[in-house]
Amino acid sequence: MSINILFAAQADRWTQYEAHLRRALDETGLDYAIDTEMPPEEVDYIVYAPNSDVQDFRPYTRLKAVLNLWAGVEGITGNETLNVPLTRMVDEEGLTQGMVEWVTGHVLRHHLGMDAHIVNPDHAWDKTIPPLASERVVTILGLGALGSAVAGMLRHLGFTLRGWARSQKALDGVACHAGEDGLDAALSGAEIVVLLLPDTSDTRDVINARTLALLAPGAVIVNPGRGPLIDEADLISALDSGQLSHATLDVFRTEPLPQDHPFWAHPKVTVTPHIASETRPPSASRVIAENIRRSEVGEPLLYVVDRDAGY
Amino acid sequence: MSINILFAAQADRWTQYEAHLRRALDETGLDYAIDTEMPPEEVDYIVYAPNSDVQDFRPYTRLKAVLNLWAGVEGITGNETLNVPLTRMVDEEGLTQGMVEWVTGHVLRHHLGMDAHIVNPDHAWDKTIPPLASERVVTILGLGALGSAVAGMLRHLGFTLRGWARSQKALDGVACHAGEDGLDAALSGAEIVVLLLPDTSDTRDVINARTLALLAPGAVIVNPGRGPLIDEADLISALDSGQLSHATLDVFRTEPLPQDHPFWAHPKVTVTPHIASETRPPSASRVIAENIRRSEVGEPLLYVVDRDAGY
Repeated sequence: MSINILFAAQADRWTQYEAHLRRALDETGLDYAIDTEMPPEEVDYIVYAPNSDVQDFRPYTRLKAVLNLWAGVEGITGNETLNVPLTRMVDEEGLTQGMVEWVTGHVLRHHLGMDAHIVNPDHAWDKTIPPLASERVVTILGLGALGSAVAGMLRHLGFTLRGWARSQKALDGVACHAGEDGLDAALSGAEIVVLLLPDTSDTRDVINARTLALLAPGAVIVNPGRGPLIDEADLISALDSGQLSHATLDVFRTEPLPQDHPFWAHPKVTVTPHIASETRPPSASRVIAENIRRSEVGEPLLYVVDRDAGY
Repeated sequence: MSINILFAAQADRWTQYEAHLRRALDETGLDYAIDTEMPPEEVDYIVYAPNSDVQDFRPYTRLKAVLNLWAGVEGITGNETLNVPLTRMVDEEGLTQGMVEWVTGHVLRHHLGMDAHIVNPDHAWDKTIPPLASERVVTILGLGALGSAVAGMLRHLGFTLRGWARSQKALDGVACHAGEDGLDAALSGAEIVVLLLPDTSDTRDVINARTLALLAPGAVIVNPGRGPLIDEADLISALDSGQLSHATLDVFRTEPLPQDHPFWAHPKVTVTPHIASETRPPSASRVIAENIRRSEVGEPLLYVVDRDAGY
């Protein structure tokens, strides 16, 4: 019997994904149909973006799984009409690699003090030599697939690394901390902090006046994770007081970032438009096809969301 | 008999180096004296900066070797009064690591298009996703100690790499070219070009109108090598025509870069003040002490300059 796959995301995504998904599904050898419209009661799998029209899953009576196109699932974990497994995207090749590149680039930018040379209206020839990476303490909050990959690259560059996650992790060359006490140890004296936590009730506002005060004076925040991880008013206060020297932010509570938001005009904030990591259609399509194949042959799905934990 | 070592460099260098050199020399177990002044006929070794007062080596009648504090030796290779081995600095820990960090940071900066976010007066939310590193062609001219180390890190990040050197090299994951024909192959279609060649009569003006025309439209030049590698007028023409989108330059024919030099005000040029790589006193001192130890026990010196080749 043929498998029916509904692609539920905005129209431009179908244009990006259709050919790649068909190629990846063809390679599984499964007999399938995939389309953007389908009678709900005939759908076996939904390839899903949380901003799609599908919000009520009850009519999908034979649904086996929902396969999220992105890593972030906060737009769907609270949906009580969903009663089948939900997977999130872990696209090592595309999403993870893109994140590693973006974070490594911005960490090096701040480490090297590049901005003073990129914008140098006084033509100052200031031969201040930055310290070596080994003399720079970088803390990564969140040691999941993305955080671990970023840690691996920053370690290869020689940075002195600390990490923090909800549960204790062990990563080569990273001083790993866990739990509430561990958070303070991870942040105390950190010079560059990278936020790669999921957005959950536990992580909301993890960057606030209290935790910002733990950092080294003149520290930098780099947030390619989720907007609500940061208390925005506290961040701005810390920038204005000099406790922080800069914040480079890729994600926001409202996106696109509203034009009247103070981040846009703040001289110590760099806004990037949620580009740190984007699922890439070729590799993401292979992950989705692999999960459908696994489901059909009874193997465990990859990257199943723990909906109580929120990721 | 005690070994006499003259430290011939500007006074502030002695302040930086004295303690580190003494520590490193103590560890060799040799009986030595080191100072900034010494009767020439008693000097066994000179730790040397090419801008020091010592330019005539003839009075140094028992001199065994000159140990250059930096990688660049163009200020001394033509000195005909020097008739003993000359070594240059290859400071893996400090100089090479610093270079890897600077080049990796600026390559990622251009690869990710960071400048458009760092300076964004219109507050544009432009979600153009950069390609992955694997889709970006980076060419490194010069595959010596620095070029090879840089290639290794950029390869680890996933860039599509090409290299060029005078003689054929073999580096894992790098399409290596050599000789004059090889230069064109290395540059054709390159999007980011990193210059890490020595300054010799063969390499002068290697970046000129002809070679710039080979690059991908909108390419970027990153020069942490030597100023004379670039024909400056041709570089500016290529920036103005759009053939190049940017040049990030750390080294110049005259340093500090004169205030009236057109690079300062050019919107597509970033000037950094010769900071890409600096010898770090602790690790450089160990290299110098090791070479003196080798010389005293009759082992071959490390990093001896081929004065005909010029490096």
